[in-house]
Amino acid sequence: MNFDYSDKVKDLQEKLGEFMDEHIFPHEQTYRDQLDKNDRFSSYPQIIDELKQKAKEQGLWNLFLPESEYGGGLTNVEYAPLCEMMGRSSIGPEVFNCAAPDTGNMEVLVRYGTEEHKDKWLLPLLNGEIRSCFSMTEPEVASSDATNIQASIIRDGDEYVVNGTKWWSSGAGDPRCKIAIVMGKNDPNAAKHKQQSMILVPLDTPGVTIKRTLNVFGYDHAPHGHAEIEYKDVRVPASNMLLGEGRGFEIAQGRLGPGRIHHCMRTIGAAERALEILCKRVQERTAFGKKLAEQGVIQEWIAEARINIEQTRLLTLKAAYMMDTVGNKEAKTEIAMIKVVAPNMALEIIDHAIQALGAAGVSQDYPLAASWANIRTLRLADGPDEVHKRAIARQELKKYQ
Amino acid sequence: MNFDYSDKVKDLQEKLGEFMDEHIFPHEQTYRDQLDKNDRFSSYPQIIDELKQKAKEQGLWNLFLPESEYGGGLTNVEYAPLCEMMGRSSIGPEVFNCAAPDTGNMEVLVRYGTEEHKDKWLLPLLNGEIRSCFSMTEPEVASSDATNIQASIIRDGDEYVVNGTKWWSSGAGDPRCKIAIVMGKNDPNAAKHKQQSMILVPLDTPGVTIKRTLNVFGYDHAPHGHAEIEYKDVRVPASNMLLGEGRGFEIAQGRLGPGRIHHCMRTIGAAERALEILCKRVQERTAFGKKLAEQGVIQEWIAEARINIEQTRLLTLKAAYMMDTVGNKEAKTEIAMIKVVAPNMALEIIDHAIQALGAAGVSQDYPLAASWANIRTLRLADGPDEVHKRAIARQELKKYQ
Amino acid sequence: MNFDYSDKVKDLQEKLGEFMDEHIFPHEQTYRDQLDKNDRFSSYPQIIDELKQKAKEQGLWNLFLPESEYGGGLTNVEYAPLCEMMGRSSIGPEVFNCAAPDTGNMEVLVRYGTEEHKDKWLLPLLNGEIRSCFSMTEPEVASSDATNIQASIIRDGDEYVVNGTKWWSSGAGDPRCKIAIVMGKNDPNAAKHKQQSMILVPLDTPGVTIKRTLNVFGYDHAPHGHAEIEYKDVRVPASNMLLGEGRGFEIAQGRLGPGRIHHCMRTIGAAERALEILCKRVQERTAFGKKLAEQGVIQEWIAEARINIEQTRLLTLKAAYMMDTVGNKEAKTEIAMIKVVAPNMALEIIDHAIQALGAAGVSQDYPLAASWANIRTLRLADGPDEVHKRAIARQELKKYQ
Amino acid sequence: MNFDYSDKVKDLQEKLGEFMDEHIFPHEQTYRDQLDKNDRFSSYPQIIDELKQKAKEQGLWNLFLPESEYGGGLTNVEYAPLCEMMGRSSIGPEVFNCAAPDTGNMEVLVRYGTEEHKDKWLLPLLNGEIRSCFSMTEPEVASSDATNIQASIIRDGDEYVVNGTKWWSSGAGDPRCKIAIVMGKNDPNAAKHKQQSMILVPLDTPGVTIKRTLNVFGYDHAPHGHAEIEYKDVRVPASNMLLGEGRGFEIAQGRLGPGRIHHCMRTIGAAERALEILCKRVQERTAFGKKLAEQGVIQEWIAEARINIEQTRLLTLKAAYMMDTVGNKEAKTEIAMIKVVAPNMALEIIDHAIQALGAAGVSQDYPLAASWANIRTLRLADGPDEVHKRAIARQELKKYQ
Repeated sequence: MNFDYSDKVKDLQEKLGEFMDEHIFPHEQTYRDQLDKNDRFSSYPQIIDELKQKAKEQGLWNLFLPESEYGGGLTNVEYAPLCEMMGRSSIGPEVFNCAAPDTGNMEVLVRYGTEEHKDKWLLPLLNGEIRSCFSMTEPEVASSDATNIQASIIRDGDEYVVNGTKWWSSGAGDPRCKIAIVMGKNDPNAAKHKQQSMILVPLDTPGVTIKRTLNVFGYDHAPHGHAEIEYKDVRVPASNMLLGEGRGFEIAQGRLGPGRIHHCMRTIGAAERALEILCKRVQERTAFGKKLAEQGVIQEWIAEARINIEQTRLLTLKAAYMMDTVGNKEAKTEIAMIKVVAPNMALEIIDHAIQALGAAGVSQDYPLAASWANIRTLRLADGPDEVHKRAIARQELKKYQ
Repeated sequence: MNFDYSDKVKDLQEKLGEFMDEHIFPHEQTYRDQLDKNDRFSSYPQIIDELKQKAKEQGLWNLFLPESEYGGGLTNVEYAPLCEMMGRSSIGPEVFNCAAPDTGNMEVLVRYGTEEHKDKWLLPLLNGEIRSCFSMTEPEVASSDATNIQASIIRDGDEYVVNGTKWWSSGAGDPRCKIAIVMGKNDPNAAKHKQQSMILVPLDTPGVTIKRTLNVFGYDHAPHGHAEIEYKDVRVPASNMLLGEGRGFEIAQGRLGPGRIHHCMRTIGAAERALEILCKRVQERTAFGKKLAEQGVIQEWIAEARINIEQTRLLTLKAAYMMDTVGNKEAKTEIAMIKVVAPNMALEIIDHAIQALGAAGVSQDYPLAASWANIRTLRLADGPDEVHKRAIARQELKKYQ
Repeated sequence: MNFDYSDKVKDLQEKLGEFMDEHIFPHEQTYRDQLDKNDRFSSYPQIIDELKQKAKEQGLWNLFLPESEYGGGLTNVEYAPLCEMMGRSSIGPEVFNCAAPDTGNMEVLVRYGTEEHKDKWLLPLLNGEIRSCFSMTEPEVASSDATNIQASIIRDGDEYVVNGTKWWSSGAGDPRCKIAIVMGKNDPNAAKHKQQSMILVPLDTPGVTIKRTLNVFGYDHAPHGHAEIEYKDVRVPASNMLLGEGRGFEIAQGRLGPGRIHHCMRTIGAAERALEILCKRVQERTAFGKKLAEQGVIQEWIAEARINIEQTRLLTLKAAYMMDTVGNKEAKTEIAMIKVVAPNMALEIIDHAIQALGAAGVSQDYPLAASWANIRTLRLADGPDEVHKRAIARQELKKYQ
Repeated sequence: MNFDYSDKVKDLQEKLGEFMDEHIFPHEQTYRDQLDKNDRFSSYPQIIDELKQKAKEQGLWNLFLPESEYGGGLTNVEYAPLCEMMGRSSIGPEVFNCAAPDTGNMEVLVRYGTEEHKDKWLLPLLNGEIRSCFSMTEPEVASSDATNIQASIIRDGDEYVVNGTKWWSSGAGDPRCKIAIVMGKNDPNAAKHKQQSMILVPLDTPGVTIKRTLNVFGYDHAPHGHAEIEYKDVRVPASNMLLGEGRGFEIAQGRLGPGRIHHCMRTIGAAERALEILCKRVQERTAFGKKLAEQGVIQEWIAEARINIEQTRLLTLKAAYMMDTVGNKEAKTEIAMIKVVAPNMALEIIDHAIQALGAAGVSQDYPLAASWANIRTLRLADGPDEVHKRAIARQELKKYQ
């Protein structure tokens, strides 16, 4: 296992770090100020376009993509420290065209898309011209077990007809969002893991209705938005099918590995930022005759935070290293581990930071509460902790069967 | 220690339970629908007035007040199960005129107010005609140590002049909020716990400016609102001083005991509701071939929830019993204990409920996320957990000195 | 729910407290000194007989027994504080003839024994002349599910023939131990909970062999001893059968309720003692320029200890109250709750005490390590935590079916 | 950071793994059987000599020593997987001459010893002919703050006179133990960290008395033994002083780094073994109609165990890598982190294994309870967790000062 970095990557780290300091952190407030107060999903903060342009010019663009034809050609190990850095700000990833769910969707199109799919959807996504969403989870079933998914994708002549209600189609609130990857059943009688397909559905197709957006602990996450979408007799060309009927699980597996590790990397960045905020604040405030930084309990929080960040980062690097060397499939247990560890680690650190800051911590004056709420969803997204732990345990038990 | 209830109290419990089922739970959504979408602090949902009227008619009004002259004449032990019931809904307490911070403020006025104070502020509060706020915490200091508070209340002839910036003056966002109790220093040279006073400041006094409201996670808690208030050369009659100069800490101690235990009782109610939601949902949903309710990990959550609720309720009853029999001061360690225990207990249960519900749990479709965010603030309000634990420990250590 | 005590009980509390201070704590070391160094199970420390005599003279004898014919006639609520006090010392319970497993076995004999059983075994047990053991758990099966138990108790004429290997027959190492209650299958074809019986087996019956004693974290618990016993073609009169064939589960249920709550009461006493040791020590020792008692982390341990002890005690009293008023069966969920809570609570406190004392804590110089090891077994004895939590959860879920 | 292994190291790993399987695990019981039942500290199990001879022949000897003149010449990163493997058995480390406290003492002699010290003590230790102990901790002070240490080492002509009582001089119970490194004050008026010295004291010097051995939970750890040693007017040649007067802290720092990381490596091995025992057992036992391995709670334990082992191992490797590349001093924060993490991680896993095994887990039939007790001391040895967390926190806070 080798986590050394080439000069090229070190150079990217330096450039990205400077970009964060100069352009990202100072504009977090600009972003919030530019958000429409009343119709929060009709437009998006214009600062984003300026920053994207700058990032593109500096070559800090699409770094997530391992394949060199379209992306930065970085390995997962190489991308890890960069992605972590982006994750320190909630507006970071989009600026570098490295935001979910677009990254996962672009990976799907690179791997499984036809030339037509690539021309029509991948290129505009890579250029940051449009955005995309992923319609998988459904309100009426326990989607943690994806075999429960009920939406239907039925062949009818040269078309497929899509029916179903999806929610948590994150990003679909944004006016720039043009395309959805929809998962649904095309054959309820096939083998359990061959029933589901994935298909491309342009959001302007008749029958697609965004019913509402869901909140996350009071945050509407505008303009991104977590949409509930009704697909009612939605007809798309048969060529929009990805990879072939019944191959939805196969795509999901390929898509989710990188998506999960990126979330973990960003989460580590968010944890580092929370720890930084905590450490600065407790050296400024005094209670009961000494600085908060001198209180034993707060020191314990800090020590545990540093330990847990280090451990999570190393495990994430190991998972990245395995993805790079033996492939996403072989790395699935390591990916499951960091999927569980990273959000829980970060939530505890952010919670301690909130506690150390007092009421300021839960407010809009610091990024802590928003970061906590966002990361809390990661214990559920792409499968709850419990499902991943079950998978890890079964893998472990197999060693002794 | 005797937690038996009289028939009168049992009767109140039954009536209140029915009221919750018939009038409160069915109108939680009405409340949200009636909230102004664009100017959320200019009005309040009219359903509240209808419900308050109904509660008053049924004698479910001001039950929190132990003194019989103004209130229901219930002991703390008697009020406990009622307050818990109200706490099952976020709109419950206000309907019964038992909401914070009004309850604490009314207690202050009952105990320490002059006849003039009572006529002018207590009676309209008891009637539910106006609301009030409590201006203590400041943005620039660690208010967990109240000796840090910097606002000034300086005598000038027949008046006091109030200067300072307060925040988390909860309730001041509401158009019905008319009066603030403000804490500040009148004599920086007095003994440490004699420097602070409390004074009544009508919110329409010149120099009082509500600068903004603070969010709790993503919730603005409209129309209630957690206000940042600037007090700039605010002049009030000298008779507005409560109890006398330098007696702020004395009032704070008297005020905070009941306030804290009420929060705990309501928090237990919120925990019960979360557990109920969890238990119902896991019996409806299936994953990996069995009901969620049959998954061992979820059963463990349920068992621990039941255990922790029971324990917290009993400790709260003990604290209530001590307040009733030996007084708030003697009960201070027990109050500190439940102040720490109740929010942490509830947060864990609600978090588990969210985890069991999946993404629905973090959304507006269930009360869980809002309840979590609200209760998270209780680990900070009236002093962070760490300050209370410190006090408990010092009390324990004293036994062996 | 009423936890008030009569003057009679208050008097017992005072007498018992004095007895502990005068006769028990000062003789803990005497007990250890008198233990045979080389053959630890051939005799027992003579100090025990002296102390038992004293306790009997003072009426501090058999207080555990609720029934007035044989015992002190105390309710469970009344016995709770007394049992807790005894539990502060590892040698306490035996001195007052309130030690496990004799108490449970005496309860079985009182409830389900014939006159012959009572004359022969109950009276000498009540007099403290002999001791007894309970042979249930087996090495070859998961005894947490008692239906797994494999020993056989087969009728043959006027006798029953017992075959099987039991272990953790605690107390059987003691030379005074004369009688075992053995659980085993008499009919493998009966309904699942009707297959098992319990029978009285004198330990001097041919075919009974004590193979060895088990250690608990290095402690042999001499002379008590946790014995592995082989029962090989052991023949006892048919009249030794308790209650009747197939009624083993019924007896187990009746036996385990009181046994469990007594363990909890004693465990609370052990936790109090650990907290006392911790509080004293941290006020004596200094590190890094201040007393350990002033270190924030240690204060947090102390506060949490006090909170958790209070909560556990109250829940134990509630369970006791329910056993007294609605019966052991109705109280089964509360008993399960304290069965889980008490040991975990105490283990954490003792562990913190060990940590605060440093290496002294794990040694023979303090009762902490021995107490920890002993209480660690209570998370397994009479069913592991997980089985009890499962039962609590199922009870909770039933409310919403 | 590069954790790749050379062929030489891979070869050692393979040989050592085979040795463990063939010679160590099968002889754990032999070792216990050969321990003298009555005078446990007068001799030692002869199997050890046979196994040591075999290990030496295979070149599995002194692998811990980084320096090539005396040792295997392995880096810390290279030694890590080997040390972990040895740690899977309590008798492993001694067989390979890699046991504490000898390893730490040998390091001290290599680094700071004179040629005379090396001839007289280092060579016999390297040959496995004698053993050694480290006399630092004292019963009367909080030794977690080493400046508290009170023993005196006073120059008198050509000699030093040592006075003081030490305890937890581990290994001094063994008849093979010939030499102690003793820490004590030579100058109470020097700067705080210049008061202490370390000196070599042969155990047969007049005035050295082993008063007793301390137990760890119920284990006496014979023949090793944790001795309380009285040093009364003990005179040794002045040349026995290590490095020079007042340089005790300097030596302690140099000694403790490697000692700590070795403990962590071994602890990871012990955790792996516990997890293996757990995984095997839960696939063999059935309760409530399914294998324990299928119970959700047990699966959660397994998953968390695997995750935590992975994380701890990676952090230990990082610390080892830093020791190898930037030196023990620069790696001190990482060493502190693993010093805290490894024992806590292992204790939880072993505790879960015990819980899964039931009462067997606390007994002598499995290595779990002994391993737990042993590792519990590591949260105290070389400074309690709390002291290390404090150091980590202060380091973190410095980044923002």
